[in-house]
Amino acid sequence: MNSREDRWQTALTSIAPNKILVRGYPIDEMMGRLTFAEAVYLLLMGELPTPSIGRMFDAILVSSIDHGVMPPSTLAARNVATSGAPLKDSVGAGVLAFGPRHGGDIESCMRFLDSGLTLTRSGKSLLEAAESLVAGCARANEVPPGFGNRIHARDPRAARLFQMALELELEGEHVRLLRAVEAEIEKQSPHFGPQPVNVDGAIAAVTADLGFAYDLGNAVFLISRLPGLIAHAHEERARQKPMRQIDPKDHSYDGAHERRLPERRK
Amino acid sequence: MNSREDRWQTALTSIAPNKILVRGYPIDEMMGRLTFAEAVYLLLMGELPTPSIGRMFDAILVSSIDHGVMPPSTLAARNVATSGAPLKDSVGAGVLAFGPRHGGDIESCMRFLDSGLTLTRSGKSLLEAAESLVAGCARANEVPPGFGNRIHARDPRAARLFQMALELELEGEHVRLLRAVEAEIEKQSPHFGPQPVNVDGAIAAVTADLGFAYDLGNAVFLISRLPGLIAHAHEERARQKPMRQIDPKDHSYDGAHERRLPERRK
Amino acid sequence: MNSREDRWQTALTSIAPNKILVRGYPIDEMMGRLTFAEAVYLLLMGELPTPSIGRMFDAILVSSIDHGVMPPSTLAARNVATSGAPLKDSVGAGVLAFGPRHGGDIESCMRFLDSGLTLTRSGKSLLEAAESLVAGCARANEVPPGFGNRIHARDPRAARLFQMALELELEGEHVRLLRAVEAEIEKQSPHFGPQPVNVDGAIAAVTADLGFAYDLGNAVFLISRLPGLIAHAHEERARQKPMRQIDPKDHSYDGAHERRLPERRK
Amino acid sequence: MNSREDRWQTALTSIAPNKILVRGYPIDEMMGRLTFAEAVYLLLMGELPTPSIGRMFDAILVSSIDHGVMPPSTLAARNVATSGAPLKDSVGAGVLAFGPRHGGDIESCMRFLDSGLTLTRSGKSLLEAAESLVAGCARANEVPPGFGNRIHARDPRAARLFQMALELELEGEHVRLLRAVEAEIEKQSPHFGPQPVNVDGAIAAVTADLGFAYDLGNAVFLISRLPGLIAHAHEERARQKPMRQIDPKDHSYDGAHERRLPERRK
Repeated sequence: MNSREDRWQTALTSIAPNKILVRGYPIDEMMGRLTFAEAVYLLLMGELPTPSIGRMFDAILVSSIDHGVMPPSTLAARNVATSGAPLKDSVGAGVLAFGPRHGGDIESCMRFLDSGLTLTRSGKSLLEAAESLVAGCARANEVPPGFGNRIHARDPRAARLFQMALELELEGEHVRLLRAVEAEIEKQSPHFGPQPVNVDGAIAAVTADLGFAYDLGNAVFLISRLPGLIAHAHEERARQKPMRQIDPKDHSYDGAHERRLPERRK
Repeated sequence: MNSREDRWQTALTSIAPNKILVRGYPIDEMMGRLTFAEAVYLLLMGELPTPSIGRMFDAILVSSIDHGVMPPSTLAARNVATSGAPLKDSVGAGVLAFGPRHGGDIESCMRFLDSGLTLTRSGKSLLEAAESLVAGCARANEVPPGFGNRIHARDPRAARLFQMALELELEGEHVRLLRAVEAEIEKQSPHFGPQPVNVDGAIAAVTADLGFAYDLGNAVFLISRLPGLIAHAHEERARQKPMRQIDPKDHSYDGAHERRLPERRK
Repeated sequence: MNSREDRWQTALTSIAPNKILVRGYPIDEMMGRLTFAEAVYLLLMGELPTPSIGRMFDAILVSSIDHGVMPPSTLAARNVATSGAPLKDSVGAGVLAFGPRHGGDIESCMRFLDSGLTLTRSGKSLLEAAESLVAGCARANEVPPGFGNRIHARDPRAARLFQMALELELEGEHVRLLRAVEAEIEKQSPHFGPQPVNVDGAIAAVTADLGFAYDLGNAVFLISRLPGLIAHAHEERARQKPMRQIDPKDHSYDGAHERRLPERRK
Repeated sequence: MNSREDRWQTALTSIAPNKILVRGYPIDEMMGRLTFAEAVYLLLMGELPTPSIGRMFDAILVSSIDHGVMPPSTLAARNVATSGAPLKDSVGAGVLAFGPRHGGDIESCMRFLDSGLTLTRSGKSLLEAAESLVAGCARANEVPPGFGNRIHARDPRAARLFQMALELELEGEHVRLLRAVEAEIEKQSPHFGPQPVNVDGAIAAVTADLGFAYDLGNAVFLISRLPGLIAHAHEERARQKPMRQIDPKDHSYDGAHERRLPERRK
């Protein structure tokens, strides 16, 4: 073994007999005292979140926990499950489907917003930066990353994330620029058609304001959606015959009726 | 499209324009009101957890969030990262390494405990069931699933999970049987050598008491460890040169020193 | 670095500057002199195949190169492709769908045949062994591994493999037992219904006669089908819009019409 | 089901009861008459290769079949195997490690060469195009894709591919440009240091001359290396204890001694 200086370094977790320190904190002390979302924040970012940030991060992770059977990641997971493969193989396949157009949009939107903020550093207003960003997309004939949705004209998850960022006083320049871009797109709607901000855009702006690195922005979506992949793979194994042909359009919902959270949760 | 009766069914999430219901609850209402762990529980189990169960489940997910660079899943993720592949590919590879001997032990331990509890249904005491289970393993010359650890003689995560289950009044027959098995193994230590209960065993017993299906027991570990895989893949990309040869023994820790949670978190 | 004795050992390929030896043979000498199938055989089995075995192994690999869009592995690969992910991610997801009921049947059938051959070692005839195997499946109400197909009443790939094994004088006891089992199933068809031997069964018997290990039997299918996964992922990316909903039943074929190999290939 | 016109189309393989046509050819007619490499070429490219192209393609697939234990893909596969996961999970993880710096270089090199050939279309000579390409890399301080190797100063696989392309009269403008770039780099070696053409570069040039699409260039490497991943995963499972710490530098080779192919193969 090499001397200490030659070894490669890690700053995440130290392991000694009967002692596990995550970013310096004993894991058994974290258990019961931090929510899982707070522990994830600590592990990824290196420091404990404030209570406001912790609450925001829990909400971010809840926002994308599942989106029904139609996303390609869910269908990849179900197609692996129908072959009789173990649950983790379904999950692995689903993770691979988080491509540039599904989940990966978060990193693109973070970079997009940062390119706009660079303009403000050289004297442009937020409004001018938004105009410039949208004009660039119009010229390239592309929908700006973080906008557009196949189903939702007004994405309830994005709206709730913006509301919470405001209430928790966590709204920063990335969120403000995204909102300015949203308004600018609406003004240019003859060109773009309706392209509402989507949950990827909202997560991108909020996590960028929290200081997340680009690839960790995508990773937040991955952590959030994992339980969805698991739930669908489990349901496929539990309720369906193996080796079936899965038509994504040919399904209906037979779960719980719409209901409200109990009062004490509000 | 087929008539409603011929379609295949899903009971997880219903999607309509501007409305996403997870197990019947509007997702925007869940955001900010449920922790991510509570939302995961809802999605997997179909109903909201009680506050005690929610706290227990947050602690379970925190317990296995990371275990340093040495688990094979972490090394698989880092080896993929060093090739320059995107972060989600590292995560996919890490997930695949959750084999029978790493993560997969949870399902084995759940089945092991249930086979013991079947004995109690036919009149045996918990102690007799534990003796019978351990004798079976001794005959097969196998360490019982959920026991043994390469590093920890007393796994602090298992101890904390048992303590919380007791305090939150969630200890059930699976936990009690596991503790009885632990005592029985200690009595037979000349045969087995020291085989302390490990965190897989503790998660298996607690989630079985909560009513989780076998494959969801393994999935709980998967959800818990995902941020660890992400953190290591991110660190590999951020701190190391690409295409390096990763020796798992040749590293040292240069992160935060041991520290305590602030008072308000306790 | 440890002394030579303490190091871990590999017997596959030795690498030195400007020299690559696969199982002892210089790779540049193999190129142009061995077919890829022969090189695969050498790598997996440790020795060069005879020309007959080489030809047989080429045919085995050709047999399962593709089976249209309906296998779950192909659908998993296409669902990953539609998300915009790179080709290798589609391939990874497809590989994960080779579950016990798709591809994995080869290992099960090899074990099944070996359990029958064990009976012949203790004095039973091949016919009696086949009767015993089929009776066991009938009692368990299971179709024997290697039999049954959703589409083909007479699998042309299995028939051709048996024909080649005979012509190349490579037919051994595994193939003979499989044929005996096939005849026995037909005799008991009131119980089983039509369950023709399928290509998995034929590959299992032929590779077992060649001496392949169980997990390498499955691997042969994996090598064979990989180009199919690649071709479908490539076609999905090249011909379809991204983020589409892939209905496996709603397609038709617009490729080359049926044609024959040119005379010189026969 | 929709009418024929509304269905999505595939041109690869048509499936009917007892009949499987790959690109129009009956699969049972292909078996025994085409090598696996020829069948792969047919499936990916749509037409049968000439005998020369078939031989070239067999050699390309042989060239990268294995490269010992040190590539990150091999280490990812072995780390998954040591966790007790099934062989296909090792393979899936290995595939994911084919990142931009390992396997993915083929596509980059194909694009690099095509950008040079575009210059020749507008009147530059091959030599001028090579000078321009190398000067561009020197300005960007990057090694040109397809050049450089950690181990081999003269890659025997690249040399053999060039020799075969020449002998089989398959050398085209991509190979000629690559050789010109190689000479140009050597001339500028004070800037670059020794950067020999590597096997990725040779495969890129030869497959580009054969007309392969960019993503299929990478796929050729994937098909070639798959047996290597399988052989290492199998060896790990067969020869090593589970849950070990795999140090990539701490191994030695105990396989067959160097040997020559028998005369009849030459």
